[in-house]
Amino acid sequence: MTFLLHPRLEADAFFIADWPLCRVLLMNDARYPWLILVPRREALTEMMDLLVQDRALLMEEIAKAGEVVRGRTGVTKVNIGALGNLVPQLHVHVLGRHPGDPAWPGPVWGHSPTVPYETSARDALIGEVRSL
Amino acid sequence: MTFLLHPRLEADAFFIADWPLCRVLLMNDARYPWLILVPRREALTEMMDLLVQDRALLMEEIAKAGEVVRGRTGVTKVNIGALGNLVPQLHVHVLGRHPGDPAWPGPVWGHSPTVPYETSARDALIGEVRSL
Repeated sequence: MTFLLHPRLEADAFFIADWPLCRVLLMNDARYPWLILVPRREALTEMMDLLVQDRALLMEEIAKAGEVVRGRTGVTKVNIGALGNLVPQLHVHVLGRHPGDPAWPGPVWGHSPTVPYETSARDALIGEVRSL
Repeated sequence: MTFLLHPRLEADAFFIADWPLCRVLLMNDARYPWLILVPRREALTEMMDLLVQDRALLMEEIAKAGEVVRGRTGVTKVNIGALGNLVPQLHVHVLGRHPGDPAWPGPVWGHSPTVPYETSARDALIGEVRSL
C-alpha cells in the first residue's frame, strides 16, 4: 500500500527528506524552526498504534529533529507535540522556541497565522537538514 | 543524586506511581484525563539529552499512558506534548481530547484555568492507573 501525505500537511509544509521511518517536512512558518515528522505508515492516528520497533525509531527521529532545531540561532527550548485534533494523520511537531517569540510561553498551535518563508531562507534550512 | 519534582508540577498534579523511567502524575484538571510523565533523571530539560535507552523507555511509557487515556469514556484523540516553556524540568503531557471539550480543537496548554477534581473521581482514576 502507498503512503499518502494528508493534504493539509502537503499544503502547509515543504518536503525535506524521507528518514528511515518518517517523512520530514519543514512547516512554512519562518518565525520558528519547525520540523514535522510523519511516519510513513498508513492509516495511523495515534503513536500507540505504531509497532514497538517503529516507536523506537520515531523517538530517535524526534531526537534527531530536536538537535537540528536546538542548533538554530536563538533557540532556547524545543517543543514537541503530537496533537492531531485537526489533521488525523499521525505527525509530530518538533520546533524551536525562545522567550519573546510570538507565542511564547504558550504553544504555537492555533496561536496566529503563519509567516511564509522567503525562498532563500527556506532552501538553506532544507539543504542543511538534507546534509545531515 | 536525588530526583526532585519541580514545585510547579508538585502543586498542579497528584502522584500516581513511579514507572521504570518516569514519575507518573495526574494533572489536577477534571475536564481531561491528563497524565504527566516526568523522567526520574536530574537536570534534564530536553528529550534529546536522555540516554538512548531511556528515550526508548520514555516512548514505551508514553504509549502506556496513551492507552490509559484513550480508554477513558468519551476520548476520541490523544494529545502528547513536551513543551517546558514554563517548567523547565523535562515532562511529557499525555491527555485525552474530544470534539466539544473546552479547548477543542486547540491545545489545552494555556487555554483556560483548570477545574480541580472531586476527591472520589481523582482517587478512582489514580487507583485505576496504579492497578495496571
